[in-house]
Amino acid sequence: ATTPAAAPRTLDLAVIGGDGIGPEVVGAGLDVLRAAVAADGVDVRTTDYDLGAARWHRTGETLTDADLDAVRQHEAILLGAVGDPGVPSGVLERGLLLRLRFALDHYVNLRPSVLLPGATSPLAPHVLDKGPVDFVVVREGTEGPYVGNGGALRVGTPAEIATEVSVNTAFGVERVVRDAFARAAARPRRRLTLVHKHNVLVHAGHLWRRTVEAVNAEFPDVSVDYLHVDAATIFLTTDPQRFDVVVTDNLFGDILTDLAAAVTGGIGLAASGNVNPDRSSPSMFEPVHGSAPDIAAQGVADPTATFLSVALLLEHVGLGEAAARVQEAVVGALADRDPSAPRPGTAEVTDAVRARLA
Amino acid sequence: ATTPAAAPRTLDLAVIGGDGIGPEVVGAGLDVLRAAVAADGVDVRTTDYDLGAARWHRTGETLTDADLDAVRQHEAILLGAVGDPGVPSGVLERGLLLRLRFALDHYVNLRPSVLLPGATSPLAPHVLDKGPVDFVVVREGTEGPYVGNGGALRVGTPAEIATEVSVNTAFGVERVVRDAFARAAARPRRRLTLVHKHNVLVHAGHLWRRTVEAVNAEFPDVSVDYLHVDAATIFLTTDPQRFDVVVTDNLFGDILTDLAAAVTGGIGLAASGNVNPDRSSPSMFEPVHGSAPDIAAQGVADPTATFLSVALLLEHVGLGEAAARVQEAVVGALADRDPSAPRPGTAEVTDAVRARLA
Ligand SMILES: CC(C)[C@H](C(=O)O)[C@@H](O)C(=O)O
Ligand SMILES: CC(C)[C@H](C(=O)O)[C@@H](O)C(=O)O
Repeated sequence: ATTPAAAPRTLDLAVIGGDGIGPEVVGAGLDVLRAAVAADGVDVRTTDYDLGAARWHRTGETLTDADLDAVRQHEAILLGAVGDPGVPSGVLERGLLLRLRFALDHYVNLRPSVLLPGATSPLAPHVLDKGPVDFVVVREGTEGPYVGNGGALRVGTPAEIATEVSVNTAFGVERVVRDAFARAAARPRRRLTLVHKHNVLVHAGHLWRRTVEAVNAEFPDVSVDYLHVDAATIFLTTDPQRFDVVVTDNLFGDILTDLAAAVTGGIGLAASGNVNPDRSSPSMFEPVHGSAPDIAAQGVADPTATFLSVALLLEHVGLGEAAARVQEAVVGALADRDPSAPRPGTAEVTDAVRARLA
Repeated sequence: ATTPAAAPRTLDLAVIGGDGIGPEVVGAGLDVLRAAVAADGVDVRTTDYDLGAARWHRTGETLTDADLDAVRQHEAILLGAVGDPGVPSGVLERGLLLRLRFALDHYVNLRPSVLLPGATSPLAPHVLDKGPVDFVVVREGTEGPYVGNGGALRVGTPAEIATEVSVNTAFGVERVVRDAFARAAARPRRRLTLVHKHNVLVHAGHLWRRTVEAVNAEFPDVSVDYLHVDAATIFLTTDPQRFDVVVTDNLFGDILTDLAAAVTGGIGLAASGNVNPDRSSPSMFEPVHGSAPDIAAQGVADPTATFLSVALLLEHVGLGEAAARVQEAVVGALADRDPSAPRPGTAEVTDAVRARLA
């Protein structure tokens, strides 16, 4: 009698290359992903979705209901970057990127910030010498000023009024705060910083504050502190080591994670996950950088942020060992870069990482 | 026959020392102000207003209508800092500070950022070596998410919802944008950067954007560019030299100016003016830092930010030469500080500046 072989694990991904350098970095990211899971015998299947500026120019569509239904069927999504200067501001952001985040209930927007050896920080040695920079921002992804609940009256007249409404619910704040606490509890320093502006935005701010206090009771080992968003930007530049896990709203998180990326070597290295922790729909992983049309198709885009996003993806789908291998290979390849040599191109960076995975 | 002597210029100030280190830095600031105008024969009159945490603890009052009427009678206001940990968040911010800014129609919140010789920036030499950092943020002061138009329902229940409404009007945006253009036109580089997030906050963002485009026609010599607020934080740390005049909304301005202060040596050096350019009510000048109760009454608070705020005040009331003298004295004293010596105390810093004014 023979034991039937275990069915091989499949990983079924939706791939949105997008515009500009998006397809290049996603192509490199998939190469690295495949190399990382080869040893585990994972069967990687990908379906490309034609979404972004090119599609919009051609058809006027951003994300149809049919697209959304199709994307929903996959286990996870890898996205490059979307947009070009010919698309009016807001069309792809609201119609595609945010639509995906909201429709797929990506309430945890996860953005790790680690200053890796080989990365160039704009901070001075007297700041960096204090110790390693290694924190993660848990940005709320489905509420706040991003809900699109604004409006305008008498547009184009001297009596115009435009509003933007930040919506914050106990439901929405509690679930992201609980996720952030769980992440903090699993890290050695077990420290959570709430960032808001509760001295001015008193209604939303006090909801966030009370929620953090309440959920803290479930995680008594996690120590909590609070910073106003303006003060947080000061600490990010003068004492980034003080941060472990940061939890904050959608807009503050947008701002702080770009600053955090700058401090830890630039958005060329910054990964992100738009995570649905309940797994009621696929999570989406993307580099923080944009489509950079000016350097597209030249083979010079740095795919490192996509590789690190691939690592987040692998971790999320339960392939933690492969995730660790990608992370390690990226860190090693970056540390090995010769800072005096010309910046390596996409292929060179990819080859260096794949060589370490072989 | 004798010509009657010209009536001496009087300068009639409302002084709000406030709490913590506020009274100390304001005391030093008034000493410096008096020394600076002595040569011009200006008769300085001051009236102290007991406002802040101490008053609130004693009486439960933040700013009464009578206080406001009284403060309104003066030519300008010098404020130190208000607040202590015993006052609930938002009480003094909304009830006193923002109430003053809104009631006195301080629609230009002016925040210069200059990296002065002797100041310690957290940025690396490879960033700072690119050139001098010298810009000013014109932060809108009477609209945006600061209007207090939020609310909450079912507070403390799982069904709680809290909103914050950002209000932006053509009236409010246009007047601050015009002020920012005028400032840009008067500077050598004549460059204005609008900072917003118009790809997400489309209604407010497009109002700001259209307004900047329209007002640019009145200032054809000013070149304009645009940055999303998240990208602006990156440039503030990697290329702060790119900024000349920045115009932005109340909340983005709050965040960017703390970051800008950090980059140019810390909020201990950051001055601000809450300006009513129409002069329909007195403008208010204050250091950006808070009341720092932990170091109060020890003589260690750095009054430099207050001195620079005094310079902004003098400039605003038409005493430009005295303003320049203060600015020059502060710059000289700071450059003269021995970086290896212990940080000088309040009296020492004040004496150094006064000596240069004598
Ligand atoms: C492109 C834009 C909608 C997006 C955001 O604001 O979230 C981006 O800045 C990001 O941080 O992923
Ligand atoms: C204290 C607070 C209300 C204030 C603000 O948010 O404007 C402060 O941060 C500032 O920048 O002057």
